[in-house]
Amino acid sequence: MSFRSNKFRLGIVGYGNLGRATVNLLLQKSEHWRTSDGIDLALTCVLDVNGGFYNADGLNCEALAAHGRASLDSFNGFDAKFNFKEMIDERLVDIIAEYTPTNKETGEPGLSHIRYALQNGIHVTTSNKGPILVAWPELSLLARNKGLMLGVGCTTGGALPSVIAGRDAMAGADTSIIEGVLNGTTNYILSRMESGLDYIEALKEAQAAGIAETDPGMDVDGWDSAVKLVILAKVVMNGNIDLKDVPVKGISGLSIKEMETELKAGRRIKLIGRAWREGGVVRASVAPESVDKTHPFYSVSAKDKCVRYVSDTLGDLFVSGGASGPIPAAASAMRDVLLAWRTGIIV
Amino acid sequence: MSFRSNKFRLGIVGYGNLGRATVNLLLQKSEHWRTSDGIDLALTCVLDVNGGFYNADGLNCEALAAHGRASLDSFNGFDAKFNFKEMIDERLVDIIAEYTPTNKETGEPGLSHIRYALQNGIHVTTSNKGPILVAWPELSLLARNKGLMLGVGCTTGGALPSVIAGRDAMAGADTSIIEGVLNGTTNYILSRMESGLDYIEALKEAQAAGIAETDPGMDVDGWDSAVKLVILAKVVMNGNIDLKDVPVKGISGLSIKEMETELKAGRRIKLIGRAWREGGVVRASVAPESVDKTHPFYSVSAKDKCVRYVSDTLGDLFVSGGASGPIPAAASAMRDVLLAWRTGIIV
Repeated sequence: MSFRSNKFRLGIVGYGNLGRATVNLLLQKSEHWRTSDGIDLALTCVLDVNGGFYNADGLNCEALAAHGRASLDSFNGFDAKFNFKEMIDERLVDIIAEYTPTNKETGEPGLSHIRYALQNGIHVTTSNKGPILVAWPELSLLARNKGLMLGVGCTTGGALPSVIAGRDAMAGADTSIIEGVLNGTTNYILSRMESGLDYIEALKEAQAAGIAETDPGMDVDGWDSAVKLVILAKVVMNGNIDLKDVPVKGISGLSIKEMETELKAGRRIKLIGRAWREGGVVRASVAPESVDKTHPFYSVSAKDKCVRYVSDTLGDLFVSGGASGPIPAAASAMRDVLLAWRTGIIV
Repeated sequence: MSFRSNKFRLGIVGYGNLGRATVNLLLQKSEHWRTSDGIDLALTCVLDVNGGFYNADGLNCEALAAHGRASLDSFNGFDAKFNFKEMIDERLVDIIAEYTPTNKETGEPGLSHIRYALQNGIHVTTSNKGPILVAWPELSLLARNKGLMLGVGCTTGGALPSVIAGRDAMAGADTSIIEGVLNGTTNYILSRMESGLDYIEALKEAQAAGIAETDPGMDVDGWDSAVKLVILAKVVMNGNIDLKDVPVKGISGLSIKEMETELKAGRRIKLIGRAWREGGVVRASVAPESVDKTHPFYSVSAKDKCVRYVSDTLGDLFVSGGASGPIPAAASAMRDVLLAWRTGIIV
């Protein structure tokens, strides 16, 4: 233990809301992590599609935070030629936070980034669902063989510790069912519909509040839930399942009348994703379902998310909460780094 | 990785319900753990107050399970002179499951067992709350300095992953509040009182069903909750807090009329333990409290337990479930072994 380094260089790849939140989180927490956890994380690289910058002594996070949403190419030291390959080849980082946008068909560009980083001995934490959806067996095996971290907790609900609950809290048990309310936006819209808004009104309100995207399809059509569910089924149940195998039904077809009928009967409609073992294989589906007051999902309101695991020897486990937004999401990506540090995977 | 052993010898210390359940769990799961987790756990020692037995090739778990609750000294190979010190000094085990009864004042005999095992390079998983309550800072530091496992998840709710949720799922965040329904027996009695039984009737029913002890004081007077809470406050919040600092109120003073009044108002009474930071120190209390339908504890019924953490950067986390009984408790003690194996602490 005495020869173990505690200094690690972090590179952010993809500088949107989550990248900026990570800079703010480092400002808020890195001194605390140094004193209480003993890990010294320095942000040395930031990369976006047009280039980025590097400083071996650590970038100035205060200046970066103050730079805000302004274009990165106006930040001091920006180099349009600086790129991912150079960052890895020159060993300018020990850990990357892969935050590029999700492409659920190809996994790119995140897939190439993660693969290349792991091949070169660099630890990875990621928010990018695409590469995990497309290539989990390959990437997890690569990380394991190299003794590297591949942190995916941020891909399946951010601060909600769905992977930790399913993988660590169920260690040694056999998980036969995963079910969850995995998408906060649809849960918010459903809650508002219970208050009397119709689907379109509730969606518009959610969009105005910044909860739903301008293009809400991934959320309201159930695909975001399905992607998270498939990742959990792979990571937790070792399921050989693809997104195309999952019947997915969203919430856009729900009427205010259906909501009212269920409410009057003491039930609520939730968009539920479920994976289960059936004859040696893992199956999954996503659809709106009605739950009564005795069901743990009944009281999961507004933007909250939850997940439930059913196991043989450790019983059922229900987990809800985890704040929404960029800072909690960044905190979940860094949580995997801290866990890997504590358990000696990052050395 | 290639030089890492995957064979570990387990010794059970204290052979009551939990020890027997561990034997049954090993029968059910050790082959699965070998093939899916890659760890080969062999039970080589069993010790109880009167002696025990040892087999370097692994004890016959089937014969032990068949032996049931019969006195150990009638089991083949029993040696009244075999003792804890010999087991450790002769290095007959790599891991002990310390299952002796809790003494919350002295921590003994578990405290001496755990200290001696760790000093001699032996990993520990334990159900014994006493040593953790009395000597957590000393024992955790000793384990850390020696690079050893000290698994305490079984002490704070068994299968309910309260330590994993508070320590791992909140890694990197600052937890300011822990609260929970930490005792299943009292929660069951309160549920039955809501059905119209008075306290004495509900207690007798719980005793007849084997849910409450013949001497129910530890449970109904709130001490079991307080002990678990103090352990969580130490392990999760690094709190310098002793059991004697905690005001504890149990459920025996509750009347059926109070329960009815709360139920009619849409509330339920739960025995809640809470720890929080106040002016740089951690404080805690245990008392019955009334919660309304919006509170996550409202729907935690019957024998279930739950815990909730409030953090800065990862938001709130609510965890409930985890089956009750000896097998789930044994599974929680072995969960810490499997996690330590996966993360390379057990090598």
